[in-house]
Amino acid sequence: MIEESKRLAAYTAVDQHVKPEHKVIGIGSGSTVPYVVDRIVQQGNGLNKDRVFIPTGFQSKQLIVQAGLNLGDVDQYPTIDVTIDGADEVDKRLNCIKGGGACHLREKVLAEAARTFVLVADYRKNVNVLGTNFKPGVPIEVVPFAYAKVLQNLHHDLGSPNATLRMAIKKAGPVVSDNGNFIIDAPFDRERMEDPYTIMARIKMLTGVVEVGLFCHMARAAYFGNEDGSVTIKWDDGKVDSVNPTD
Amino acid sequence: MIEESKRLAAYTAVDQHVKPEHKVIGIGSGSTVPYVVDRIVQQGNGLNKDRVFIPTGFQSKQLIVQAGLNLGDVDQYPTIDVTIDGADEVDKRLNCIKGGGACHLREKVLAEAARTFVLVADYRKNVNVLGTNFKPGVPIEVVPFAYAKVLQNLHHDLGSPNATLRMAIKKAGPVVSDNGNFIIDAPFDRERMEDPYTIMARIKMLTGVVEVGLFCHMARAAYFGNEDGSVTIKWDDGKVDSVNPTD
Repeated sequence: MIEESKRLAAYTAVDQHVKPEHKVIGIGSGSTVPYVVDRIVQQGNGLNKDRVFIPTGFQSKQLIVQAGLNLGDVDQYPTIDVTIDGADEVDKRLNCIKGGGACHLREKVLAEAARTFVLVADYRKNVNVLGTNFKPGVPIEVVPFAYAKVLQNLHHDLGSPNATLRMAIKKAGPVVSDNGNFIIDAPFDRERMEDPYTIMARIKMLTGVVEVGLFCHMARAAYFGNEDGSVTIKWDDGKVDSVNPTD
Repeated sequence: MIEESKRLAAYTAVDQHVKPEHKVIGIGSGSTVPYVVDRIVQQGNGLNKDRVFIPTGFQSKQLIVQAGLNLGDVDQYPTIDVTIDGADEVDKRLNCIKGGGACHLREKVLAEAARTFVLVADYRKNVNVLGTNFKPGVPIEVVPFAYAKVLQNLHHDLGSPNATLRMAIKKAGPVVSDNGNFIIDAPFDRERMEDPYTIMARIKMLTGVVEVGLFCHMARAAYFGNEDGSVTIKWDDGKVDSVNPTD
């Protein structure tokens, strides 16, 4: 059921936002994104042969290559028509937590480069305040040399006493990002998460922090697949739509 | 003469700030710092055998090891009694440009960790407004993946049309920092450099920027060796002293 809700969200978002005139398309990371690529492939080779697809990391690069789509680089295509990406959680103003997959730096670059940035997810990620269901906290990419100092700052100065270094499972020691950095997961209380921009800016200003997995004021719309087969669409102006793509 | 003025600045700063009770000492980078280590060695093994020295990078690590001093790590000693470091330029409020040597991330971590942070340099680095003599601009450490986007931001949004990627001389392609990142040098006009904190914060907030080589409101004092054998001392409260250590 979760898989079906991810598929519905992805298909609806592609139908709405990936238009024939779009030639440069950003492909994000996460478990909903394979369905985004599926739907783009269904638009046909007639459209896709003239398009370039920019990945946010290893996973989306593999998806693009395996689907036989044209792979591009953000250095060559600094302006992207539309980027579609997953999220760990999205609040009522379309602020979101990203970085469960440790790709949030590249994701943020592609979100900034996009004329339109769209989120896709299942209904569990649709919340009023960030941190409601997603408990690990805000993912923070840090330079290895400075991780202990940044943990101290988070514990003592920024109000995240339970911030921890993310440890790897299939290797000894910490997770290393695609950029060679470490990841800290920093949970904050509900009051702080009601103003994610302020906490994001305070974390980013810390010496040693590379990027914060809070995306504020960036998305145009977020698509959530529901258990009943409908899709909830939240827009950046506060409007909420519900559509039933299976009709 | 320049060497002698560096030596005088370093010796005077050590005599003033590295006290017998100081047990954890940060050693910075740059051409003045070898004289700092020289003077500390002259304080004798009686004091130094109970001290730990924390380096900001490869150069200062080598200096500590070659002098036979005890090498420490900032993870183990998160609070440093005093850090002495060089600078590319220091303004009248002790804001400074650092990062000509691409070590400014580690230098900033050690400056933040220090109870007292002291700068040493020769007279050419003593200016009213940053950028007066030091022309390459503000050193910015960036994640390699995002360097082209950050250059765009600097050129079009932040007012540094001549910002460039720093190229290496003894290797092909760009300089790579000790943290595996690239360095951008971004010159700004005099008006912007009169308020270095604001430009520092704007650059640091850019996605992909790791650290900015502007240190604002961090130093307690700056020591400049002059050509006539005197040393000018600028303090964080605006006072300026002049001493003649050769008397």
